[in-house]
Amino acid sequence: MTVAVQNYYPEDAAHCYGCGRLNDAGYQLKTEWREGEAITRFTPQAHHTSMPGFVYGGLIASIVDCHAMATAAADAEASAGRPLGAGTVARFVTASLRVDYLRPTPLGPALEIRGQVTERGDRKAIVEVTVSAAGQITARGQVVAVRLPETMR
Amino acid sequence: MTVAVQNYYPEDAAHCYGCGRLNDAGYQLKTEWREGEAITRFTPQAHHTSMPGFVYGGLIASIVDCHAMATAAADAEASAGRPLGAGTVARFVTASLRVDYLRPTPLGPALEIRGQVTERGDRKAIVEVTVSAAGQITARGQVVAVRLPETMR
Repeated sequence: MTVAVQNYYPEDAAHCYGCGRLNDAGYQLKTEWREGEAITRFTPQAHHTSMPGFVYGGLIASIVDCHAMATAAADAEASAGRPLGAGTVARFVTASLRVDYLRPTPLGPALEIRGQVTERGDRKAIVEVTVSAAGQITARGQVVAVRLPETMR
Repeated sequence: MTVAVQNYYPEDAAHCYGCGRLNDAGYQLKTEWREGEAITRFTPQAHHTSMPGFVYGGLIASIVDCHAMATAAADAEASAGRPLGAGTVARFVTASLRVDYLRPTPLGPALEIRGQVTERGDRKAIVEVTVSAAGQITARGQVVAVRLPETMR
């Protein structure tokens, strides 16, 4: 059984438009954590288009962003030896986001987003992300995640 | 008087969720072109939040993305000596998007996004972007724009 990382964000940090469980107008992305890898699935709607028939790049960037924060949060818990679901998780925010669009992403199939932490420190983590549609990687992301600063509380 | 770059996207390339004038569900971003610089203004809605009180980073990435494409399109027209508004403009799509979040962006004020092409070639352009809120730069973007490939028509 898997649980969504975002279900364990603290209540005062769960309103994100991309992944906050308390944002009724948002995407409510859910990221599963499986043995060191994070997986998010999301099916864009018809209006999430760039050119007709393809997914809007800004949506892909948004999903990569939220997915990477969840990956960093879950990885931090795992590194600390805490099983996911034992309590709230540390909340990360984005310092830097890079997305390379390798090929157009077809609009229709569910997107599968996978992420892994490739570098971790006390305050930050680097997360590598892939976005796939119908089994083919269409975009790659590299995201620098930092622990939520006090200025954002 | 200024005109919006997106008003001159070809009709079959005007459905983008971020900036397509024919996408009723989207943001309908409008980019003005003024003597070599592009300017977009956009006021996020209350639900476009990351942490309460701050703008969602995925929205910022989305605006940077669409703004950069408009900047590349307007710059290409200017470089070819065609005044904006004389006909449809060349459509660009995003090859690579990088956004550095310098500080949290307050939710409330209109965002001002400025962009300039810093490198241009036959097929691609590099666009540097700033995002400001209440007069302070909160994010910087660097975007690689390429002319719309035939595979996306």
